[in-house]
Parts: sequence; C-alpha cells; structure tokens
Amino acid sequence: MKEKVSVGLLGLGVVGSGVIQLINDHREKLTHQLGCEVEVSKVLVKNLDKTRNIHINGDLLTTNPSDVLDHPSIDIIVEVMGGIDQAKEYILRAFNNKKHVVSANKDLVALHGPELQEAATKNRCDFYYEASVAGGIPILRGISEGLSTDHIQRVMGIVNGTTNYILTKMDEEGMSYEDALLEAQRLGFAEADPTSDVDGLDAARKMAILGRLAFSTPVELSDVEVNGIRGIELEDLRYGKQLGYTMKLIGFANFNDQELEVNVQPTLLSKNHPLSSVKNEYNAVYVYGEAVGETMFYGPGAGSLPTATAILSDVSAAIKGLRLGVSGSQSNEMQFTKTLTPINKRHSQYYIRLCVKDESGVLSKISSLFHEQDISFQRIVQTPVNDYEAAEIVVVTHDTSLSNFQHTLEKLKSFEAVMEIKSYYKVEGEVM
Amino acid sequence: MKEKVSVGLLGLGVVGSGVIQLINDHREKLTHQLGCEVEVSKVLVKNLDKTRNIHINGDLLTTNPSDVLDHPSIDIIVEVMGGIDQAKEYILRAFNNKKHVVSANKDLVALHGPELQEAATKNRCDFYYEASVAGGIPILRGISEGLSTDHIQRVMGIVNGTTNYILTKMDEEGMSYEDALLEAQRLGFAEADPTSDVDGLDAARKMAILGRLAFSTPVELSDVEVNGIRGIELEDLRYGKQLGYTMKLIGFANFNDQELEVNVQPTLLSKNHPLSSVKNEYNAVYVYGEAVGETMFYGPGAGSLPTATAILSDVSAAIKGLRLGVSGSQSNEMQFTKTLTPINKRHSQYYIRLCVKDESGVLSKISSLFHEQDISFQRIVQTPVNDYEAAEIVVVTHDTSLSNFQHTLEKLKSFEAVMEIKSYYKVEGEVM
Repeated sequence: MKEKVSVGLLGLGVVGSGVIQLINDHREKLTHQLGCEVEVSKVLVKNLDKTRNIHINGDLLTTNPSDVLDHPSIDIIVEVMGGIDQAKEYILRAFNNKKHVVSANKDLVALHGPELQEAATKNRCDFYYEASVAGGIPILRGISEGLSTDHIQRVMGIVNGTTNYILTKMDEEGMSYEDALLEAQRLGFAEADPTSDVDGLDAARKMAILGRLAFSTPVELSDVEVNGIRGIELEDLRYGKQLGYTMKLIGFANFNDQELEVNVQPTLLSKNHPLSSVKNEYNAVYVYGEAVGETMFYGPGAGSLPTATAILSDVSAAIKGLRLGVSGSQSNEMQFTKTLTPINKRHSQYYIRLCVKDESGVLSKISSLFHEQDISFQRIVQTPVNDYEAAEIVVVTHDTSLSNFQHTLEKLKSFEAVMEIKSYYKVEGEVM
Repeated sequence: MKEKVSVGLLGLGVVGSGVIQLINDHREKLTHQLGCEVEVSKVLVKNLDKTRNIHINGDLLTTNPSDVLDHPSIDIIVEVMGGIDQAKEYILRAFNNKKHVVSANKDLVALHGPELQEAATKNRCDFYYEASVAGGIPILRGISEGLSTDHIQRVMGIVNGTTNYILTKMDEEGMSYEDALLEAQRLGFAEADPTSDVDGLDAARKMAILGRLAFSTPVELSDVEVNGIRGIELEDLRYGKQLGYTMKLIGFANFNDQELEVNVQPTLLSKNHPLSSVKNEYNAVYVYGEAVGETMFYGPGAGSLPTATAILSDVSAAIKGLRLGVSGSQSNEMQFTKTLTPINKRHSQYYIRLCVKDESGVLSKISSLFHEQDISFQRIVQTPVNDYEAAEIVVVTHDTSLSNFQHTLEKLKSFEAVMEIKSYYKVEGEVM
C-alpha cells in the first residue's frame, strides 16, 4: 500500500491556497485518518512570478498543464482554476490518465457534470465536487449518503451568499437594493460585475447539481427557471414583513409523481420556515424527505478555507477509495428519466401588489376577477397611496396553479381599474 | 457478488417497524443504489402474538436471539431493542459471528461505544450508529466525513426534542414548566417518567458520542457535566428575552489546546445564534471548525421514520462496504488522549438573578464585589419586586472563568445584602 498520495492542483487562487494551507496545517490529522501522507506535487499556475500569501516551494509551480496532468506519480487532481472549456478538457485528460478528480467548479459541474461522471466511471476513477454547492456545508454527502434511502421530494436552498447578504441588508436596515449591492461589493461579497449572482445564475447552477443528486434525475441547467433579485423594491419587503414573510432568493427543486420542477426566484418566505433565519452571506439547504421530514444544513457558502475544507473531504474520500481499491465505484446512473412538471400542476401561493384606481368598488371587482379564476385569498390589504387617484392592493393567494396565476395576471393587465401590476412573488410556508 | 443481503432485526418497536416500512417502500431505490436486494430475514421480538401496525410475515418473527444472531445467511444486524446489558451482549455476539451491526442505541453507544468499536474492528466488521444522535439528521457522517479535515473546536447541540419542546412552550406561550411538561407528555414528546430527558441525561449521552467523533478523543459519559431544565422559572426566560436571549438546553463540547470540556446545561442563547431559531421538538447541531467556521445541521431528533432513515443510511454504508470487500476499515483509534479543561480555563459569560434587600447602595456594593473578582458586567438591571423590602438584580457578565464565577457565587451567598441567589445560567453569543 502506498505510503504517500500525491495531489496535483490546477489553479492557485484563494481556494487553491486554502487547500495548500489546510494540507500543511493538518498534516498529522490527515496521516492519522488516512494512514498515509498527503503531498502536493505540482501546481498549475498562470504566472510563476506572482507574489502569493502562502508558503509554497517555487519548484512545485508550473505553467505547463502536462506537468500536472501527465505527472506519473500524481493520483488525485484538484481543479480550482474555474472556467468551463479548459477545465473540462483538463479533467477529461486527468480521467484518461486514471487520475481521480476533485472539483469546486459549479459552473462546469452544472453544465457538464453527467458527461464528466461518465468519463470518470469509464476509467474507474472517482469524481467528487462537494465544494461546488454551498462551500463548506457537506450537503452533497448529506443527500447522497445520509438521506440515501429516503424519497427526497423537495430541496430549497439559499445557495448564493451575495444575494442573501443584499436582501438581509434591505430587510434589516432598510437599505435600497443599490446601496446594499455597493456595500456587498465593498466587503468583497459581490464582484464588480454582479450579474451571475444577482440574476440568480449562480444559484441556478447549484440547484441543477442538487436536483440531480437529490432526485436521481438528469437535471440540466437549462431546466432551471431563473429570476434574480435586481429591481426588488423595499415596499415589497415591508409589505412582506407586515404579513409575516421575509424576502429570500430561494432555489426550489421539487420531485413529485416523478415530475421535476426546478427554479430560482425571489420568494416571500414565512418567518416560521427554518430558512428564514439564514442571514447575511450564509447559505443553507433545506431538504424535505418523505421519511425524514424536514432537515436543514447551514453554513458558509463561500470563502477560501470553508471551500478548501469541502475539497479536502473529497480528497480524503478519494484517498480512502484508492487505498481500499474501490475507486470508481460511485454510480453515475440516474434512476429516473426526466419529465418536467406542467405549469397546471405547479402549485404555490402568490403575493401580488397592484396599483389601482382609487374608486369605490375596485377591491370587490378585483376580488371577483380572482374568484372567476378560482383563486382564493389568504390576505388582501388595500392602502391609499400619496397620489390621490391611486391606491395599492396587496393580495396573498391560497395555493393555485402557475397556469391559473399567469392567466389571472393577463386578465389583470387588461383590467380597466388596474393601473399597474407593481410586483408579484411566490409565497412559501404558513404564517401563524 | 451477492444478489441479496440479509438483515436481521433485534426489536420491532416503533423504530424497528419504521425500518421494515422503509425497506418495503424503497425496495427499488435500494436495489438501484446498492446493486443488490435487501431482505429482512429474521426479527427478534418479545411477544409473537402482539398486534403490529405493519405488514410482516409472521414466520420472520422469533423470540430466540440465536435465530437472528447465529443465522448463517444474515450479514447485518440492526439493533433497535434498546437497553444496555442485553443489547451489548447481542452486539458482541454478532461481531464474533462476523456480522456488521447498525445500532440506534444512544445509551449503549455512549457507555460502551469504544469497546464495541474495538470488537467490530477486531472482527473486521462495521459498526454504525448514525441514528443514536439527533434521529434523522446525518450529523455523525457530516462530522466524520464532511468536516474530516478540519479542526473542530466546538460542538453545540440542541439534541433533546422533549426539553426543546418544553422550553419553546414556556418561551412562546408563557406556560409554566409543569404545564409544558404535561403538554409534551400528552403529545407523546415526553415519557411518563421524563427524568432522562428533563434532567439532561439523554442529551449528555449524545454529547459524549458527538465529542468522541468531533475531537477524536475518548470522551466518556462520566466526563459530561449535566444540569437539566427541571425547575426553570418563567422569570428567567422573561428577563432573558428582554436582554436578547432565548433559553435552550445546550450540550457544549469544546476542544482547545487539546483540552476537553463537555457539558449539558440550560443556557441563555443570543437570538443571533443559529441555534436560537430551533423550536419545538426539532434538534440541531452547531459545529465550529477552525477552517469551515460555523455550520449547523437541523432536523427531527426522533420519530419512527426519521430514525429509520438514519438506520438505513447505515445499513447502506455497511452493504457498500460488504460488496466492495472493505468492511471493518473504519478506524477506532483516537488521535488525542483526554485531558479535561481545568475550571480556571473554562470561560463563559453568565447570567445571574439575585434577590437583594431594597436599600440604597446595594447595587454599587454588588458591583464592587464582582469587580473585586475581576468580573465585569455587560448588563445589570435592578427591578423592585412586590415585596417592599426586596429588589431583584439581574446581571449579565462579560467572559470570565468558571472558577472565578464559582468563587463569586460563594461570596454572594455570604453577602449580607443578598437575600437569595435565585438562579444563574451560562450565556452564549453576542447580542446586538
């Protein structure tokens, strides 16, 4: 049996540096747990001369991918370079060279996970990517091992720290969306170009990965409907609060009657829902299983060391497989084929805010319109606004189908008393 | 390779029935995941004639332990009978017969876990007990695999649903301890004799198991200091709330400088702490790791199907080991020897409520007394009580050592102006 396992790194940014640091700091514990030493043998970097804030032997660095991917004694490749095409090419090459791969690359796994898994299985290699979803939270293992014998029916996630930070600031401090975004950028929680976060794309990638594992169904990124948080107004957070809800960007993945629905959207979440207390840059994934009921996994969604911790748990799993001679034994076969839930079977409650003409009988007319569409109200609030001719009506519906709701929206648009549909959001969870 | 794995059950109470139900309901999924069928071959029961609310072939039942433990084709024994001595005897016999064991028995694992693990390792058998802590929450796997390469420094758990239910009712509905206990008993969350729950013993067992795994240190049940919730007064919950805290029964396990501290005690927890939103009968375990930072695992702490889900995740792990030929590869070796943290190094904030003589200068005298012990205040509140001669003083200290705090308590007892020390509790987490 090997005395030493060699690891090669693709990339040495913040996460890669975290991996080096953890391996150095925990050398003794790793050796104790795994029964062998773990050694980083080569690291692919873009620039050999860059100053780095970790201690690493310069001889280990290379700009030639072959030095890592074709290195004869490297057993495990850790991909922390990011990007899609090149990372994919390198990982496929690693599998062909019978090397196991650990990746933190959610973009890549969301887009090409099944293909990469297939290449891994063909080469009897392991492919792990715990760090690709919710940074330091061991959620993929929780789903694939801890809850493996349950029928998971629903996964709901706050899986993007940037948007959760922005929404928390808006909710707790009454900051505008723009100010909260600036603050998030200042603190390093949001990038200069925040598109991927605020438009929900990052969350969508993670939901695709979660959905695949939770439901054993080939969820693709294009199956995920996405709405981001850009343009969310404080008014809706305030009305929500009044009614017992908190605004969160929620990724939903439902699997009922072998029909799949995955989406990411700003949602008014009941304050009684366990996800509603997840604040600032934290992430959490709520899982509802037929047998286990409600569980939730909470933790940091990003950061160098949390992400590196997840990577090292994967590296450990790969080393255990290697030492036990059982690498490549994960199944990549999905149990169910994919059927998307039609919109007439997608039920939810909705919140809708309308600007209406302030004239007598308007509330009852709108009531009737909803009633005709077979949608009943849980709450309806009418508020005069500053404009003497207008009033605001906020409605929270009972459960209705998305098709019904969309139909009602169309009707409202052409309804003479409705001046504007200000906003509408999905509503989730009972309020007391 | 085997086409079928046989499982024997010891016990067929609510949890055992749940195991049978899940195996029946998820037959197809299990076969898909494991590549073989899972079959229950024999079940040890006390009474063959008892009416049961699950469908089971009467031929499978037996009152003779040997029919299960010595059954030639049974590979895995699931122990859900409870109790200590007999369960231990049966499990040791199972290991001697080279059978893998899954147990949900927290009492047994807390008391004899290391000895049982040793017997398992000696016989190259697997021993799993995910269900023994926090029912359906896959926390043991989360710690031993997901966070395996981190230095876990602290584990805090709400690991007893009964007491959490009682405290939630007291906190939210102003029920007295006695009424809340009655309500919990009526709903089946508390037993007729609630001692093991309300006195914190059940939580202590789980903390011993968690501590062992989290710190790789041989924590014994006798290392856990325990204070239960009996006699908690609503006044302290109310003062706590006013100051920004919620009362929870918290299991603490700290490991710093290779020194160990494990205890269970009612604690005033900041409302900003993720555990503070865990309500009713739910459980949650908060883990602080040097690298990962804060994570939390939330879910049902008990119940037939959640517990059975955890048992089946263990059965699956054992079957995978069996099929891969790597059973018994878990290590039972602890990395660190055990040293308990001396009380002068155990730091915390404290809450203390005093009944004092209502005379001028008493507040400043008490201040000086704390000051002499080098304890500074975060908050101090004086309230007149109905009795014209008495007032109440509530103090929240800054961090201080337990030795210092105990010394101060002694001083207060002999202090002329102090009529009674009403209560004192550990305080955890910053309030804003």
